[in-house]
This record gives sequence, structure tokens and C-alpha cells, in this order.
Amino acid sequence: MKMNNESILKDGERLDELNRKGYMIIQNPQTFCFGMDAVLLSQFTTIKENDNMADLGTGTGIIPILVAARNGTIGHIDALEIQDISVDMATRSVLYNNLSDRINVVKGDIKEATQLLGKGRYDVVTSNPPYMNDNHGLKNPSDVKAIARHEVLCSLEDVIREAAGLLKVNGRFYMVHRPHRLVEIIATLTKYKLEPKKLRLVHPYADKEANMVLIEAIKGAKSMVKVLEPLIIYKEPSKYTDEVYKIYDE
Amino acid sequence: MKMNNESILKDGERLDELNRKGYMIIQNPQTFCFGMDAVLLSQFTTIKENDNMADLGTGTGIIPILVAARNGTIGHIDALEIQDISVDMATRSVLYNNLSDRINVVKGDIKEATQLLGKGRYDVVTSNPPYMNDNHGLKNPSDVKAIARHEVLCSLEDVIREAAGLLKVNGRFYMVHRPHRLVEIIATLTKYKLEPKKLRLVHPYADKEANMVLIEAIKGAKSMVKVLEPLIIYKEPSKYTDEVYKIYDE
Repeated sequence: MKMNNESILKDGERLDELNRKGYMIIQNPQTFCFGMDAVLLSQFTTIKENDNMADLGTGTGIIPILVAARNGTIGHIDALEIQDISVDMATRSVLYNNLSDRINVVKGDIKEATQLLGKGRYDVVTSNPPYMNDNHGLKNPSDVKAIARHEVLCSLEDVIREAAGLLKVNGRFYMVHRPHRLVEIIATLTKYKLEPKKLRLVHPYADKEANMVLIEAIKGAKSMVKVLEPLIIYKEPSKYTDEVYKIYDE
Repeated sequence: MKMNNESILKDGERLDELNRKGYMIIQNPQTFCFGMDAVLLSQFTTIKENDNMADLGTGTGIIPILVAARNGTIGHIDALEIQDISVDMATRSVLYNNLSDRINVVKGDIKEATQLLGKGRYDVVTSNPPYMNDNHGLKNPSDVKAIARHEVLCSLEDVIREAAGLLKVNGRFYMVHRPHRLVEIIATLTKYKLEPKKLRLVHPYADKEANMVLIEAIKGAKSMVKVLEPLIIYKEPSKYTDEVYKIYDE
């Protein structure tokens, strides 16, 4: 049973279509709206039947909702988020989309994820964590947007350590991040026995440097990584490549 | 003064054009001919005026000759090679191209490069090392080709450790390798304080996974890497992309 839009939205929020099974997402453009990184990560994530998944720093719940939309046979998803305002929006989006039987929004700190959710319980962990570690210059470090974008409340190492703690042996971790931190990302993954197995670089144009990287790491796997074909976003200004249109449509 | 082709070539050898300042290279198709990886590495290598360079495992001398052809103001190049047959060919190619004042072919072991050539003496080190660490299955591990392609006489760690030893602080290391070993490459570079600063993935086609990676690492630099635009080799079967034609022509 769906609620009507008026009863589900709070001040400043809007309900956005995901073009996928009729699913919608509640967002507040004043605070934070999901970006292409979340869409690409949800498409990059491989899900097998009955997989249990955890999403670390779920925000509005965009990744669990998109992953559930793409993978009808997924098991259970726990979506962890520390900010009350985001937990509240994610909970209402899950309810609105009738996904409460599959997605559980949990309020909590990534730094305690393993303790909160359970050690070695998950087949898959996803995260679209804060990218930036330049917290010194932040004007409002308690701002919702600042917490989503900068490592105010958790570091890259916190995310990776907890992902490793949550995963079963051979479990899969999927993350999107900035390529300029790739050396640190790889070093931290291997420190926690999450072996990078697939990298996909995302370039705004075919002749520009990468501005995102999608990573699959497998707990306890041996060292051997594939660098997949590059993902190019724009064919020309404001015109996506065929692949991007396909990712949004499929 | 150029020698004529007959006096400079030994049995089974041939003289191949490099399409660059009239330079030629002596190769023996029975043993080892340079590939596109050497061409791409020589183009990826940044040389400043009067830079001193060392090339580790120079083989026929292809990288020093191509780098010298592209960079008229380079200082001195020491080209280290362990196999007598290759040292001999490289020496004759240097002589043939009148490059003896700039390129010195040194017979010696990569594992002792720093001791042989001098600690902290070089602005630039290049290497197109053996890619494969699957030595167990080798039928003829003393074969010239096997030594060039497999880690029979030196490991990836030997190459990186010696590159670090040879370089000045802020000196630049350029290497081409296989992407499936990228995690190990990055871990080993950072172990020896060679910080990866630029990565360029090379893909046979735009929609295929990478089969080469070009790396620039800087001794003692801070952690921050750029993943450059992908380098695509073929537009369609047997037809190079414009960029590859340009690299060969420029």
C-alpha cells in the first residue's frame, strides 16, 4: 500500500523517480541528492540469489533501493546511516517502495558497523563513502552535506575495516571513490585482506583523466586484478554515451 | 660515420627502421623483437633538459634509443642489460645511430644496478621488465626470450628496489607492466618510497579490459595519483586509433 506524496514528504523534500520498477526516492535538495556515482555503484555491484548485503553510509538509501530494483532475488539488505535526517528519509523511501521486507535502515556509526550488524554475516558490502579528507577547511563540519562528502565522522580506513569485518570469507566489497586516492585505497584494502579483483575507471570524456573509480574487492582472495574497460560518461557536452544511457535505462 | 648494414649485422639479425630521425635498431626475430609496450613507454617518459637516465633491462636498447630520438636535450643514458647477446646488439645499434656520446650500454645484473651505476645519481629510470612470474612451467629458463619475458633473473621487487636506489629525491621512474599485477606493483613502489603519480591504462579496444599499464612514480613524493585518459590501441581490427598512429609518427 502506497502512501500519497503529501503525507510522506516533509518540508523541503521532494520525491524523485528512479525509472526502475516505479521506485521513488525522497531527497532534500537543500541537503544532499544522490549522484551518478550511486547509480554506477549499484550497477557495478554483482548480486547472487539470496545474498545478504550491508550498505555503509546509506544516506537516503539510494544504493539499497537501486540494488534491490536491479536484483529481484537478493536476500536481505541492512542500510547503515548515522545522520538522523537521512535515516528518516531512507526509512520513508523504503516504506514508500514497499521494500520493508527486504531493506532495513539501521541508525548507527560506520566505525561500529561490525559490532552493530554482526561479524562475517554478509555476502556483499557496498559503500559510497565520503571522498574528501580535507576537513581542516570546512566551515560547517556538522552540516549534513559536509558529513556525506568529507571524512568528518569516518575515515576511508574505518569504512574498509568494517567492510572486512562484516563480510564472510570470499564475500565481495563494492566501493566508488576518487582515483587520486587509489594508492591509499589499495593499500588499505589489502591491509584488511580485501583483495582488489576488479577496477573500473570512470572518465567524464574519453580523453580526460578519471574522476571516479569503481572497485570490487574479495575477502581473502589471491592477488590478481582486472582493470575493466573504461566507463566514459559523456560523448559530447550534455550528451551521455550509449553505455550511460543503458545503465540508467536497464 | 655509419657502417654499412652488412658489416654491422650478425647471423639471423635484421636492421629495422624506427621512423624517427633515421634511427634503426638491430633485432633478431629468432630471439626477441621490441613490442608496442616499448614504444608506449618511451612516449610516456617525461624528459627534461640534461636529465640523466638509466634503463633497467634494456634488451636491444630500444627504450634508450627511442627516448634519445624524442628528447634531443637529454643528458646521459646508461642502459643496463645482463644478456651478452643483447648487450652486443644494443652496443652496435647505439654505434650505428651515432649515439655513443649519449647512450652507454652496460653489461650487468639489475639486482646490482645501484652498486654498478651509482646511488641517487639519476633523474629518470625506465624499465620494461619481464612481466611474468610463472617461472615453474618454463621449458628453457635460460632462453633469451624467457629471460626477457619471465622473472627468471630478476623479480619485480628487484627492479623497483634498484630504481629507487638509482634515483635522486624527486627523480622519476617510468615502467610498463601488466595490469593484473597492479596491486603488487603499487605496494612494492610505495615500499621503496616511489609514489605512483600517474597511471595510464592501455586497452586493446575501447570495450576491452586493460592489458598494459604505464606508471610514473616519483621518489619521495606525497600520495596523490592521476589516472590519465585511457589509451586505446585499435579502432577496429588491424586499424590503430589516431592516437597510436600519432605516437608512432611524432
